[in-house]
Amino acid sequence: MTETITMTPVGLVHTRRMAAEDDAWGPEAADIVLDSRRFGPAALTGLEAFSHVEVLFHFHQAPAETVETGARHPRGNTAWPKVGIFAQRGKDRPNRIGATICEILSVDGTTLTVRGLDAIDGTPVLDLKPVMAGFLPRGPLHEPLWAKELMRRYW
Amino acid sequence: MTETITMTPVGLVHTRRMAAEDDAWGPEAADIVLDSRRFGPAALTGLEAFSHVEVLFHFHQAPAETVETGARHPRGNTAWPKVGIFAQRGKDRPNRIGATICEILSVDGTTLTVRGLDAIDGTPVLDLKPVMAGFLPRGPLHEPLWAKELMRRYW
Repeated sequence: MTETITMTPVGLVHTRRMAAEDDAWGPEAADIVLDSRRFGPAALTGLEAFSHVEVLFHFHQAPAETVETGARHPRGNTAWPKVGIFAQRGKDRPNRIGATICEILSVDGTTLTVRGLDAIDGTPVLDLKPVMAGFLPRGPLHEPLWAKELMRRYW
Repeated sequence: MTETITMTPVGLVHTRRMAAEDDAWGPEAADIVLDSRRFGPAALTGLEAFSHVEVLFHFHQAPAETVETGARHPRGNTAWPKVGIFAQRGKDRPNRIGATICEILSVDGTTLTVRGLDAIDGTPVLDLKPVMAGFLPRGPLHEPLWAKELMRRYW
Protein backbone atom coordinates (compact mmCIF):
# COMPACT_ATOMS: atom_id res chain seq x y z
CA MET A 1 0.00 0.00 0.00
CA THR A 2 2.89 2.39 0.68
CA GLU A 3 4.30 1.73 -2.77
CA THR A 4 4.04 4.65 -5.16
CA ILE A 5 3.24 4.39 -8.85
CA THR A 6 4.96 6.57 -11.43
CA MET A 7 3.06 7.78 -14.46
CA THR A 8 4.26 9.56 -17.57
CA PRO A 9 1.80 11.79 -19.45
CA VAL A 10 0.93 10.44 -22.90
CA GLY A 11 0.10 13.89 -24.25
CA LEU A 12 -1.08 17.39 -23.46
CA VAL A 13 -4.34 19.32 -23.78
CA HIS A 14 -4.34 22.34 -26.09
CA THR A 15 -7.36 24.57 -25.62
CA ARG A 16 -8.34 28.21 -25.26
CA ARG A 17 -9.41 27.67 -21.65
CA MET A 18 -6.47 28.91 -19.59
CA ALA A 19 -7.89 28.79 -16.07
CA ALA A 20 -10.09 26.40 -14.10
CA GLU A 21 -13.66 27.61 -13.66
CA ASP A 22 -16.67 25.90 -12.17
CA ASP A 23 -19.11 26.05 -15.07
CA ALA A 24 -19.79 26.28 -18.80
CA TRP A 25 -17.11 23.90 -20.08
CA GLY A 26 -19.27 22.51 -22.83
CA PRO A 27 -19.09 24.13 -26.20
CA GLU A 28 -15.37 24.56 -26.76
CA ALA A 29 -13.24 22.10 -28.66
CA ALA A 30 -9.94 20.91 -27.23
CA ASP A 31 -7.02 19.15 -28.88
CA ILE A 32 -5.20 16.31 -27.20
CA VAL A 33 -1.76 16.06 -28.73
CA LEU A 34 0.14 12.84 -28.07
CA ASP A 35 3.82 12.93 -27.16
CA SER A 36 5.30 12.33 -30.63
CA ARG A 37 8.50 10.90 -29.22
CA ARG A 38 6.57 7.91 -27.90
CA PHE A 39 3.46 7.63 -30.06
CA GLY A 40 2.64 7.66 -33.75
CA PRO A 41 -0.76 7.84 -35.47
CA ALA A 42 -1.16 4.05 -34.91
CA ALA A 43 -1.96 4.68 -31.24
CA LEU A 44 -5.22 6.41 -32.24
CA THR A 45 -6.18 4.10 -35.14
CA GLY A 46 -9.84 3.17 -35.03
CA LEU A 47 -10.79 5.67 -32.35
CA GLU A 48 -12.85 7.61 -34.89
CA ALA A 49 -15.26 4.65 -35.05
CA PHE A 50 -16.40 5.59 -31.52
CA SER A 51 -18.55 8.62 -30.75
CA HIS A 52 -17.01 9.24 -27.32
CA VAL A 53 -13.70 8.92 -25.52
CA GLU A 54 -12.91 9.01 -21.82
CA VAL A 55 -9.98 11.29 -21.10
CA LEU A 56 -7.98 10.66 -17.92
CA PHE A 57 -5.88 13.65 -16.98
CA HIS A 58 -3.93 15.19 -14.13
CA PHE A 59 -5.22 18.31 -12.33
CA HIS A 60 -1.65 19.61 -12.47
CA GLN A 61 -2.47 23.08 -11.15
CA ALA A 62 -4.34 21.88 -8.08
CA PRO A 63 -1.79 22.38 -5.27
CA ALA A 64 -0.79 19.24 -3.38
CA GLU A 65 -1.34 21.13 -0.09
CA THR A 66 -5.07 21.58 -0.69
CA VAL A 67 -5.82 17.92 -1.37
CA GLU A 68 -8.82 16.89 0.71
CA THR A 69 -8.77 13.44 2.36
CA GLY A 70 -11.95 13.78 4.43
CA ALA A 71 -15.29 15.47 3.75
CA ARG A 72 -16.21 18.98 2.57
CA HIS A 73 -19.07 20.83 0.95
CA PRO A 74 -18.79 20.51 -2.86
CA ARG A 75 -17.52 23.86 -4.19
CA GLY A 76 -17.63 25.13 -0.59
CA ASN A 77 -21.39 25.55 -1.02
CA THR A 78 -22.96 25.07 2.42
CA ALA A 79 -26.40 24.64 0.83
CA TRP A 80 -25.10 21.23 -0.25
CA PRO A 81 -24.24 18.46 2.21
CA LYS A 82 -20.71 17.88 3.42
CA VAL A 83 -19.63 14.73 1.58
CA GLY A 84 -16.45 12.72 1.35
CA ILE A 85 -13.86 13.48 -1.30
CA PHE A 86 -14.71 10.12 -2.93
CA ALA A 87 -18.40 11.13 -3.09
CA GLN A 88 -17.59 14.18 -5.23
CA ARG A 89 -15.55 14.85 -8.38
CA GLY A 90 -13.67 18.06 -7.48
CA LYS A 91 -10.03 18.52 -8.35
CA ASP A 92 -8.58 18.68 -4.82
CA ARG A 93 -8.56 14.90 -4.50
CA PRO A 94 -5.91 12.30 -3.73
CA ASN A 95 -3.84 11.62 -6.87
CA ARG A 96 -5.61 14.53 -8.61
CA ILE A 97 -6.93 12.46 -11.52
CA GLY A 98 -9.71 13.84 -13.70
CA ALA A 99 -11.85 11.49 -15.81
CA THR A 100 -14.23 12.95 -18.38
CA ILE A 101 -16.24 11.47 -21.23
CA CYS A 102 -15.96 13.71 -24.30
CA GLU A 103 -17.44 13.72 -27.76
CA ILE A 104 -14.90 12.82 -30.46
CA LEU A 105 -14.78 15.48 -33.18
CA SER A 106 -11.80 14.23 -35.22
CA VAL A 107 -8.61 12.21 -35.21
CA ASP A 108 -5.73 13.54 -37.26
CA GLY A 109 -2.32 11.90 -36.91
CA THR A 110 -1.40 12.14 -33.25
CA THR A 111 -4.01 14.83 -32.50
CA LEU A 112 -7.43 13.97 -31.13
CA THR A 113 -10.01 16.78 -31.10
CA VAL A 114 -12.87 16.53 -28.62
CA ARG A 115 -15.78 18.54 -27.28
CA GLY A 116 -16.67 18.68 -23.60
CA LEU A 117 -13.30 18.38 -21.89
CA ASP A 118 -13.15 20.17 -18.53
CA ALA A 119 -9.40 20.62 -18.53
CA ILE A 120 -7.30 23.73 -19.03
CA ASP A 121 -4.56 24.38 -21.56
CA GLY A 122 -1.38 22.43 -20.81
CA THR A 123 -3.08 19.69 -18.79
CA PRO A 124 -1.13 16.40 -18.86
CA VAL A 125 -3.17 13.51 -20.26
CA LEU A 126 -2.67 10.11 -18.59
CA ASP A 127 -4.84 7.88 -20.77
CA LEU A 128 -7.56 7.77 -23.42
CA LYS A 129 -10.22 5.07 -23.48
CA PRO A 130 -12.99 4.52 -26.03
CA VAL A 131 -16.44 4.65 -24.47
CA MET A 132 -18.19 1.31 -24.94
CA ALA A 133 -21.87 0.89 -24.12
CA GLY A 134 -20.95 -2.18 -22.09
CA PHE A 135 -18.88 -0.03 -19.73
CA LEU A 136 -21.67 2.44 -18.96
CA PRO A 137 -23.66 1.94 -15.74
CA ARG A 138 -25.38 -1.43 -15.49
CA GLY A 139 -28.76 -0.96 -13.81
CA PRO A 140 -30.68 2.26 -13.14
CA LEU A 141 -28.64 5.32 -12.16
CA HIS A 142 -29.51 7.53 -9.24
CA GLU A 143 -27.71 10.40 -7.59
CA PRO A 144 -28.47 12.92 -4.84
CA LEU A 145 -30.14 16.23 -5.61
CA TRP A 146 -26.99 18.28 -4.97
CA ALA A 147 -25.19 16.47 -7.78
CA LYS A 148 -27.98 17.37 -10.23
CA GLU A 149 -27.85 20.99 -9.10
CA LEU A 150 -24.06 21.16 -9.39
CA MET A 151 -24.17 19.88 -12.97
CA ARG A 152 -26.92 22.24 -14.11
CA ARG A 153 -24.57 24.81 -15.66
CA TYR A 154 -21.48 22.67 -15.95
CA TRP A 155 -21.48 22.06 -19.70
CA MET B 1 5.85 16.40 -21.10
CA THR B 2 8.86 14.44 -19.83
CA GLU B 3 7.84 15.14 -16.25
CA THR B 4 6.57 12.13 -14.36
CA ILE B 5 3.68 12.10 -11.90
CA THR B 6 3.79 10.07 -8.71
CA MET B 7 0.62 8.47 -7.38
CA THR B 8 -0.05 6.73 -4.09
CA PRO B 9 -2.82 4.12 -3.97
CA VAL B 10 -5.75 5.19 -1.80
CA GLY B 11 -6.77 1.61 -1.07
CA LEU B 12 -6.78 -1.98 -2.26
CA VAL B 13 -9.28 -4.35 -3.87
CA HIS B 14 -10.27 -7.43 -1.90
CA THR B 15 -12.08 -9.99 -3.99
CA ARG B 16 -12.18 -13.72 -4.70
CA ARG B 17 -10.91 -13.17 -8.25
CA MET B 18 -7.19 -13.91 -8.09
CA ALA B 19 -6.23 -13.81 -11.78
CA ALA B 20 -7.11 -11.63 -14.75
CA GLU B 21 -9.50 -13.27 -17.19
CA ASP B 22 -11.21 -11.92 -20.26
CA ASP B 23 -14.85 -12.50 -19.40
CA ALA B 24 -17.59 -12.98 -16.81
CA TRP B 25 -16.56 -10.33 -14.30
CA GLY B 26 -20.08 -9.38 -13.45
CA PRO B 27 -21.77 -11.12 -10.57
CA GLU B 28 -19.10 -11.08 -7.89
CA ALA B 29 -18.87 -8.46 -5.19
CA ALA B 30 -15.57 -6.78 -4.40
CA ASP B 31 -14.48 -4.74 -1.41
CA ILE B 32 -12.40 -1.61 -1.78
CA VAL B 33 -10.64 -0.98 1.50
CA LEU B 34 -9.17 2.49 1.97
CA ASP B 35 -5.71 2.94 3.46
CA SER B 36 -6.70 3.56 7.07
CA ARG B 37 -3.49 5.46 7.81
CA ARG B 38 -4.63 8.23 5.46
CA PHE B 39 -8.41 7.99 5.31
CA GLY B 40 -11.27 7.69 7.76
CA PRO B 41 -14.96 7.00 7.12
CA ALA B 42 -15.43 10.71 6.26
CA ALA B 43 -13.78 10.15 2.87
CA LEU B 44 -16.73 7.95 1.80
CA THR B 45 -19.53 9.98 3.45
CA GLY B 46 -22.48 10.44 1.12
CA LEU B 47 -21.28 7.97 -1.49
CA GLU B 48 -24.19 5.66 -0.61
CA ALA B 49 -26.57 8.28 -2.06
CA PHE B 50 -25.24 7.35 -5.51
CA SER B 51 -26.08 4.08 -7.28
CA HIS B 52 -22.72 3.83 -9.09
CA VAL B 53 -19.07 4.67 -8.54
CA GLU B 54 -16.22 4.85 -11.03
CA VAL B 55 -13.18 3.01 -9.75
CA LEU B 56 -9.78 4.02 -11.10
CA PHE B 57 -7.16 1.39 -10.48
CA HIS B 58 -3.72 0.23 -11.51
CA PHE B 59 -3.25 -2.92 -13.59
CA HIS B 60 -0.36 -3.76 -11.30
CA GLN B 61 0.25 -7.24 -12.66
CA ALA B 62 0.46 -6.16 -16.30
CA PRO B 63 4.20 -6.22 -16.99
CA ALA B 64 5.73 -2.90 -18.05
CA GLU B 65 7.51 -4.68 -20.93
CA THR B 66 4.28 -5.65 -22.67
CA VAL B 67 2.77 -2.16 -22.73
CA GLU B 68 1.53 -1.43 -26.23
CA THR B 69 2.11 2.04 -27.67
CA GLY B 70 0.88 1.40 -31.21
CA ALA B 71 -1.94 -0.74 -32.62
CA ARG B 72 -2.92 -4.39 -32.07
CA HIS B 73 -5.91 -6.67 -32.40
CA PRO B 74 -8.01 -6.48 -29.20
CA ARG B 75 -7.36 -9.70 -27.21
CA GLY B 76 -5.15 -10.79 -30.12
CA ASN B 77 -8.32 -11.74 -32.02
CA THR B 78 -7.55 -11.30 -35.74
CA ALA B 79 -11.28 -11.39 -36.53
CA TRP B 80 -11.35 -7.90 -35.06
CA PRO B 81 -9.54 -4.94 -36.62
CA LYS B 82 -6.10 -3.84 -35.50
CA VAL B 83 -6.76 -0.68 -33.52
CA GLY B 84 -4.65 1.73 -31.50
CA ILE B 85 -4.10 1.17 -27.81
CA PHE B 86 -6.17 4.33 -27.16
CA ALA B 87 -9.06 2.85 -29.18
CA GLN B 88 -9.30 -0.17 -26.86
CA ARG B 89 -9.49 -0.69 -23.10
CA GLY B 90 -7.06 -3.58 -22.55
CA LYS B 91 -4.63 -3.62 -19.64
CA ASP B 92 -1.36 -3.43 -21.60
CA ARG B 93 -1.65 0.33 -21.99
CA PRO B 94 0.57 3.29 -21.13
CA ASN B 95 0.24 4.10 -17.41
CA ARG B 96 -1.83 0.90 -16.96
CA ILE B 97 -4.88 2.67 -15.52
CA GLY B 98 -8.20 0.86 -15.40
CA ALA B 99 -11.47 2.81 -15.09
CA THR B 100 -14.67 0.92 -14.40
CA ILE B 101 -18.16 2.00 -13.39
CA CYS B 102 -19.51 -0.31 -10.67
CA GLU B 103 -22.76 -0.68 -8.78
CA ILE B 104 -22.48 0.42 -5.15
CA LEU B 105 -23.67 -2.31 -2.77
CA SER B 106 -22.70 -0.76 0.57
CA VAL B 107 -20.44 1.67 2.39
CA ASP B 108 -19.23 0.63 5.83
CA GLY B 109 -16.54 2.72 7.51
CA THR B 110 -13.58 2.74 5.14
CA THR B 111 -14.84 -0.22 3.11
CA LEU B 112 -16.82 0.23 -0.09
CA THR B 113 -18.48 -2.89 -1.53
CA VAL B 114 -19.28 -2.90 -5.24
CA ARG B 115 -20.50 -5.23 -7.97
CA GLY B 116 -18.99 -5.29 -11.45
CA LEU B 117 -15.35 -4.48 -10.81
CA ASP B 118 -13.00 -6.09 -13.33
CA ALA B 119 -9.96 -6.04 -11.06
CA ILE B 120 -8.20 -8.87 -9.25
CA ASP B 121 -7.47 -9.26 -5.56
CA GLY B 122 -4.76 -6.90 -4.35
CA THR B 123 -5.26 -4.31 -7.10
CA PRO B 124 -4.18 -0.80 -6.01
CA VAL B 125 -7.01 1.73 -6.25
CA LEU B 126 -6.06 5.24 -7.42
CA ASP B 127 -9.37 7.07 -7.08
CA LEU B 128 -13.12 6.70 -6.58
CA LYS B 129 -15.61 9.03 -8.25
CA PRO B 130 -19.38 9.09 -7.91
CA VAL B 131 -21.16 8.60 -11.22
CA MET B 132 -23.26 11.66 -12.04
CA ALA B 133 -25.73 11.61 -14.92
CA GLY B 134 -24.18 14.88 -16.13
CA PHE B 135 -20.85 13.12 -16.69
CA LEU B 136 -22.26 10.33 -18.85
CA PRO B 137 -21.97 10.70 -22.64
CA ARG B 138 -23.63 13.82 -24.01
CA GLY B 139 -25.25 13.02 -27.37
CA PRO B 140 -25.93 9.60 -28.93
CA LEU B 141 -23.32 6.89 -28.35
CA HIS B 142 -21.98 4.71 -31.11
CA GLU B 143 -19.20 2.16 -31.23
CA PRO B 144 -17.81 -0.32 -33.76
CA LEU B 145 -19.17 -3.85 -34.01
CA TRP B 146 -16.03 -5.44 -32.54
CA ALA B 147 -16.54 -3.53 -29.29
CA LYS B 148 -20.09 -4.88 -28.97
CA GLU B 149 -18.83 -8.41 -29.64
CA LEU B 150 -15.99 -8.10 -27.11
CA MET B 151 -18.38 -6.98 -24.38
CA ARG B 152 -20.92 -9.71 -25.01
CA ARG B 153 -19.66 -12.05 -22.27
CA TYR B 154 -17.68 -9.53 -20.26
CA TRP B 155 -20.00 -9.07 -17.29
